Amino acid sequence: MPEKFVSERNIKFMLYEVFDAEALTRYEYYAEHGREIFDLVLDTALKMGRDILQPLLREMDQNPPQFVNGAVKVHPMVRDWMRTCGEGGWISALAPYEYGGQQLPLLIGAVTRFIFSAANYSASVYPLLTAGAAHLIESFAAQELKDLYIPKMYAGEWQGTMALTEPQAGSSLSDLSTLAEPTDQGYYLLRGQKIFISASDHDGVDNIVNLLLARIKGAPSGVKGISLFVAPKFRPEADGSLTANDIQVAGSFHKLGYRGSPICQLSLGENSGCRGFLVGEPHQGLAYMFQMMNEARIDVGMSAAAIASAAYCASLQYAKERPQGRRLTSKDPTLPPVPIIEHADVKRMLLFQRAVVEGSFSLLLQCTVYADRARVLSGDDKEKNELLLDLLTPVAKTYPSEMGVLSVSQGLQILGGYGYCDEFPLELFYRDARIHPIHEGTTGIHGLDLLGRKMVMKGGKAAQLYLQEVEKTISLAREVSVLAPYAGRLQEALGKLREVTARLVQLSQEKGPEYFLADATLYLELFGIIAVGWQWLVQASVVQKTLKKGPSGEERNFYQGKLQTFFYFFHYELPKIEGLARRLLEGDGLTVETKPEMFE
Amino acid sequence: MPEKFVSERNIKFMLYEVFDAEALTRYEYYAEHGREIFDLVLDTALKMGRDILQPLLREMDQNPPQFVNGAVKVHPMVRDWMRTCGEGGWISALAPYEYGGQQLPLLIGAVTRFIFSAANYSASVYPLLTAGAAHLIESFAAQELKDLYIPKMYAGEWQGTMALTEPQAGSSLSDLSTLAEPTDQGYYLLRGQKIFISASDHDGVDNIVNLLLARIKGAPSGVKGISLFVAPKFRPEADGSLTANDIQVAGSFHKLGYRGSPICQLSLGENSGCRGFLVGEPHQGLAYMFQMMNEARIDVGMSAAAIASAAYCASLQYAKERPQGRRLTSKDPTLPPVPIIEHADVKRMLLFQRAVVEGSFSLLLQCTVYADRARVLSGDDKEKNELLLDLLTPVAKTYPSEMGVLSVSQGLQILGGYGYCDEFPLELFYRDARIHPIHEGTTGIHGLDLLGRKMVMKGGKAAQLYLQEVEKTISLAREVSVLAPYAGRLQEALGKLREVTARLVQLSQEKGPEYFLADATLYLELFGIIAVGWQWLVQASVVQKTLKKGPSGEERNFYQGKLQTFFYFFHYELPKIEGLARRLLEGDGLTVETKPEMFE
Repeated sequence: MPEKFVSERNIKFMLYEVFDAEALTRYEYYAEHGREIFDLVLDTALKMGRDILQPLLREMDQNPPQFVNGAVKVHPMVRDWMRTCGEGGWISALAPYEYGGQQLPLLIGAVTRFIFSAANYSASVYPLLTAGAAHLIESFAAQELKDLYIPKMYAGEWQGTMALTEPQAGSSLSDLSTLAEPTDQGYYLLRGQKIFISASDHDGVDNIVNLLLARIKGAPSGVKGISLFVAPKFRPEADGSLTANDIQVAGSFHKLGYRGSPICQLSLGENSGCRGFLVGEPHQGLAYMFQMMNEARIDVGMSAAAIASAAYCASLQYAKERPQGRRLTSKDPTLPPVPIIEHADVKRMLLFQRAVVEGSFSLLLQCTVYADRARVLSGDDKEKNELLLDLLTPVAKTYPSEMGVLSVSQGLQILGGYGYCDEFPLELFYRDARIHPIHEGTTGIHGLDLLGRKMVMKGGKAAQLYLQEVEKTISLAREVSVLAPYAGRLQEALGKLREVTARLVQLSQEKGPEYFLADATLYLELFGIIAVGWQWLVQASVVQKTLKKGPSGEERNFYQGKLQTFFYFFHYELPKIEGLARRLLEGDGLTVETKPEMFE
Repeated sequence: MPEKFVSERNIKFMLYEVFDAEALTRYEYYAEHGREIFDLVLDTALKMGRDILQPLLREMDQNPPQFVNGAVKVHPMVRDWMRTCGEGGWISALAPYEYGGQQLPLLIGAVTRFIFSAANYSASVYPLLTAGAAHLIESFAAQELKDLYIPKMYAGEWQGTMALTEPQAGSSLSDLSTLAEPTDQGYYLLRGQKIFISASDHDGVDNIVNLLLARIKGAPSGVKGISLFVAPKFRPEADGSLTANDIQVAGSFHKLGYRGSPICQLSLGENSGCRGFLVGEPHQGLAYMFQMMNEARIDVGMSAAAIASAAYCASLQYAKERPQGRRLTSKDPTLPPVPIIEHADVKRMLLFQRAVVEGSFSLLLQCTVYADRARVLSGDDKEKNELLLDLLTPVAKTYPSEMGVLSVSQGLQILGGYGYCDEFPLELFYRDARIHPIHEGTTGIHGLDLLGRKMVMKGGKAAQLYLQEVEKTISLAREVSVLAPYAGRLQEALGKLREVTARLVQLSQEKGPEYFLADATLYLELFGIIAVGWQWLVQASVVQKTLKKGPSGEERNFYQGKLQTFFYFFHYELPKIEGLARRLLEGDGLTVETKPEMFE
């Protein structure tokens, strides 16, 4: 295994130099924290990644979950890992003190997730899902449910899940059909199927707590008739014992990657004994679930960036160590070969990897800063941060996911034939990374979300706020001579985004939603490139200030490498918007007008 | 498994309507062939794909080669398959009558390779490699070697291989160090290591015939000192018996995909008993090997297009059968869901897949037509076709390989979570496809080949011939009103290519080879998009003529679908050159000037 999976230097740069994590401690909610605690958390997370997670990466991949006698067996590390996370307070880290949490800034939590996912994505999922599910109970459930479930979940003894998808519905949540029949006992009887539910059965915990969407009998059709339930695998009884809750596991899928964690199909209430416990009000389930979904979307983006980070570290190490060929200016075959990192094309691939990894990471942390501010501010300030987070969530989920796949692929390419073989971890990262454009909403769904909902919500208020944020960065960069031309390029790109958006809104009015949204996926791609360009300009502005102070040695290399990657992004990645904008401005509805029978 | 893996209708369209395969039979060399024979060959190949290859695709993937007691065991089908190919004349199909071949046009051979690779890529490799190796012996070896090896290879009893790569050299052929020590017995003693050699040991044949590059003791360093040898696993003796030839197999690699076929590391002459038999003249090995390498590059492109074809068929079938969601114009949840092929974004992904598959296939067949013409013509006509083939080989290898990976990935995306699981073959295609940008020269190597060698060879003569070919297509398309705007777009693209090429040549003069070639990979990408755009215009011109005749039913759908895919290519793919050209025109040497120490 490669020596590294994340750049610790970059993490600290982002946290303390770019996003000023310490500033958060000025808010009362985070007042008990400080840089020392943050550093301790990071150091511990890095140590756990190195000592516990990374060493089991290949082994968990090669020993995927087994379905035996109707139950899923996972690698024995899962039980230890969940308890370690429980005992160390990692599952409850972001929760308020009143729930036994540590009230850690989301920004710090996000970085620990990045570290864990980079070390071993599959393993990182178990505590992460549990934290999200517990947070959902915390936010919306009655006290009784909170008392019953949260402590066990935060202790890592019970697994939390997010049970949305059904076999017949897929991305179409309005077609969810799991039925919840009311009883006079205070619970509902559930009946239905759930599919592709991560960690929804395994022997690494004593119980599974499914946070599950279902439709109360007689509820309206569509998304307005969906309610949220707690549907445990075992019901905790008053005496502390557990009773089976009639949830059958129909099997664990064999997957391309992400093999250290099971995803299962569940069958609820085959024997009419599956009890579900309503969370909050009836028919409000989707609104509640969006809390967990939105958190999970940022988490998916973060995990995608994390896998890409691990791949970058692996291919960088290889490129430094592998001698092959000579510089084009000295082809004398009697000279010794140079490390392949000397070749321009290899440097290009490494710069691409780094640009994606650190650009994605930056955008995701930016979102987390908005989330932290929304948590501690109120009134207009809170709303502003919420709107920015809402707008950017589909982007922060998708750019790292889609570009992460390409970035890992370039990493594999750097190793050539070795990258294709399992002596190196690139082929594993390549398989793991491919899940991210699919789960927590496919890329197509996020395109529709960004253009069809987020850009137009509240009269375009979020979009306006976002443009102001980017303009602010541009204005500041214009003052710095090295950055000014790049500020100009980003301004130009923003002009393209405005032009495309206006054209599409016009198309919507002229020709309706199908034409408006036909190329929403391309719009999302265009938007994502510009958003990450913005984040690179944010980083470069910080770098320029520090470089003026004349750092030396490794520090100087770090800042100059940052700047070089920023240049790379603006010279190689940002120009990709040209072709996208050209297409998006056409608005001819080519795909809408393509008839299914035209495909053989 | 999906019902189809290729479109038979498209194959016939390409062969008979676009490239006029029958016209080849006007040349004496192909005079004994005709449409009936071609159709019979295709029908038989399709049947073999359906009945023999596709049914074993998943099974071979799940039971990869095993390394047992120093030898590689493969799936039992391999032996049957090789004998079937031998007995049916599939290995010798392209060889001249004098070697027992059928003198089939390369065009027809290419299509059968497409069919076999689409049905089961790993299985297709065994006979394909054998044919290429035998052809190399045919072209350059002494009669004795021909008599000894070719009949057994064409019979499918012995496996041929292409043994170039060495552990320390990778893409750097000038560093090959396998040593060939002359003896006075007419053979050489070989000593060295070869790595990543496909099918270089397995129990599906009785012998392995390695076509191997080595350096005769005292030979010049670099590529000018490389010679070609036949180095069999077992030496055939005069009495027909076989003697072990001191080639040890160090193991079979565990690969991401392409698992039905072994790739091995070989150790030659550990006991000083590995005899190599020189092919042709000393030190001319690389020039000879380029025959097999160039054939293999087209084959790799074809296999990449083939896997993408199988993925397209699979996702198309799924998209037609899977109901989910509603059209954006009728979101009423009480209405039944529509098949996902009704959604614009799914149609976009299918069009992308089809555009890549059929555009790549077209470019590859175009190359094969040049090869066929080079085979039967002489003088300037021969040279012209050879130059065009030479120029386009890196493009026809790389576009299908790189875009094939993306195309399969979009196919996987259409299936969502199901695409990530092994109930469907998309995840397998995704793994198999990833080998193609690596083997037979990585994408980076082909970028250098195209820009650094092919574009400038013979004073740019090949480049001029190519531009004339494209201009000819443009001129004809200008006469057709539906096509004229697209002819204009291609003309504009060609202008960009000219501008970029001139800029880079200027850069070469001003700043040397490193600056000239720094972005050769991007240049190859730009070139490839335009070349495939050209092929789409070639196809669309044929389609337009036929549509005028008013075909009906499925025929009409086929032609209209073709035209729609052509439109797709010009509206969505061709604009990608905008960003590439913008970058290529900068010529700032950003990657050249990036220092290795800037990477942490």
